[in-house]
Amino acid sequence: MRALIFDGELRFVENYPDPQPGDGEVLIKVIQAGICSTDLEIVRGYLQFKGIPGHEFVGTVVEGPNELKAKRVVGEINCVCHECDMCRAGLASHCRNRTVLGIAGRNGAFAEYLTLPRENVHVLPPELTDDQAVFVEPLAAAVRTLCQYPFKSIERVAVLGPGRLGLLVAQVLRPHVSQLTLIGRSSSKAPLCKALGIPLALNDSPLEKGMFDVVVECTGNADGFALAQNLVRPAGTIILKSTYAGESGPNLALTVINEIRIIGSRCGPFDRAIDCLAADKVRVEPMISGRYGLPDGVEAFVQAARSQNTKILIKVSR
Amino acid sequence: MRALIFDGELRFVENYPDPQPGDGEVLIKVIQAGICSTDLEIVRGYLQFKGIPGHEFVGTVVEGPNELKAKRVVGEINCVCHECDMCRAGLASHCRNRTVLGIAGRNGAFAEYLTLPRENVHVLPPELTDDQAVFVEPLAAAVRTLCQYPFKSIERVAVLGPGRLGLLVAQVLRPHVSQLTLIGRSSSKAPLCKALGIPLALNDSPLEKGMFDVVVECTGNADGFALAQNLVRPAGTIILKSTYAGESGPNLALTVINEIRIIGSRCGPFDRAIDCLAADKVRVEPMISGRYGLPDGVEAFVQAARSQNTKILIKVSR
Repeated sequence: MRALIFDGELRFVENYPDPQPGDGEVLIKVIQAGICSTDLEIVRGYLQFKGIPGHEFVGTVVEGPNELKAKRVVGEINCVCHECDMCRAGLASHCRNRTVLGIAGRNGAFAEYLTLPRENVHVLPPELTDDQAVFVEPLAAAVRTLCQYPFKSIERVAVLGPGRLGLLVAQVLRPHVSQLTLIGRSSSKAPLCKALGIPLALNDSPLEKGMFDVVVECTGNADGFALAQNLVRPAGTIILKSTYAGESGPNLALTVINEIRIIGSRCGPFDRAIDCLAADKVRVEPMISGRYGLPDGVEAFVQAARSQNTKILIKVSR
Repeated sequence: MRALIFDGELRFVENYPDPQPGDGEVLIKVIQAGICSTDLEIVRGYLQFKGIPGHEFVGTVVEGPNELKAKRVVGEINCVCHECDMCRAGLASHCRNRTVLGIAGRNGAFAEYLTLPRENVHVLPPELTDDQAVFVEPLAAAVRTLCQYPFKSIERVAVLGPGRLGLLVAQVLRPHVSQLTLIGRSSSKAPLCKALGIPLALNDSPLEKGMFDVVVECTGNADGFALAQNLVRPAGTIILKSTYAGESGPNLALTVINEIRIIGSRCGPFDRAIDCLAADKVRVEPMISGRYGLPDGVEAFVQAARSQNTKILIKVSR
């Protein structure tokens, strides 16, 4: 099959072996897939992943149980053992033996076909477009913040980084908090933020340092955490979404001095994300900055890394 | 008065002006004071403090209300306004306008005299020795962990760093958790740990990575946090005690991936610390590695920075 592979360098290949679904797995023909910050970090060496990246996708089941066959689906990315201490403790997304689609030990979605355990697959309602469907995985990660922190309407909440994830987080939080501030480094994203109904504040504007009850850090870099530490009030909370390659990060002294609480946050509930999109509570179409075919996948990655772009899609089939 | 001052370099002076107690303040004659890691970081430039460092002390009230006069006391280090949003929210130790004894905006205890608001002063019970009393402030910081996290007996808890603070934290936690592991970099502290009844595990021994429910990070350096991230289980908690000078720290990617919770932890309740010491629940005498007079304070700091030493005391008067 055709695929993008990363083995130290990212490239398009015509003749990658088709994947074979294992016991309890389905074979999915990929329609399209989105590039996320984790993909960009992977091609910088993050997690030492080698293989086919890509984990935000919509596709059609071509092999699997009858009730799934020919269905349009999205898929949860953590493939788990159900036997380790984490799985038994109800923390399956932290399974000790997991593989993760396009991220760890399992080929991903920048290819014509992929396999996933059938329990990972969610059938899409017909009203969801293929474009919306690609956002289910990152939107679920945004919804995860609601599962981890009991946001109160009166709290002052900042979202750092008006990027792929930050714009989803801001939209998810908007109905729950009355004082929401979306903060970015440059004004290039201001028109998009405005189109989504969430005005952008700039880093260099007079922000209320030490005044936010909660800061959700979605910048994708270490500087973002340093800013988050400055913006959150003493005994406030930082929800941390950014992962990046490299050894070092920020000094955590302010976290100790101000007794800040930090909550690491990763994957979230697909069903709630699908409901949000189906009910048009979150708008994603304005976030799409470009579309590329699989053979142009390397260029798609270049475009996804440019700060003025938001979501870049790779069209695979149909 | 005689004092140690830091203004880019630490030195002993004979003729520093005596402090004058302000409204609602008492004047305290310092008996002795302890050197803590924060003091060592301050002379490396941490927090840009200039003046007389020192915040762990025992002394005698020489000016103040009658009920305090001639009493042997210790003192809380945060001097607060009672008017800002933090004070009004019951978070006075995070007062926006605070000064902190020997750390921020207020001269400290490595001197013959110091001043503190009378509300900060705790009269000591007669059974507490001067040596025990110097440990009230750091022990309160250790007790703070109990206020911030509901330790359960069945949880696996690691304390990183068998130093000045780690040895207090380990002793405080011991009655509350049945599986406590104290972890250090070298065996030099092993005899002291044994004397305190808490065996030392070494970093390079086969530690159960990703298996601790809670890790309390007391190493005083950025490497300690990196180790804490490796040792704590997914969705576990790191209580962070270390502050250090410098711009950078650890990469936080594992915190996101494993959805770790981090709790910054600073000052704690003096009354509980005094009770612990009075009841001999925490032993501090074996932690004293040396005693110096105020004129030899610079040498005392050199000794405090040596890894084989634990608490170094500076004897000031009486």
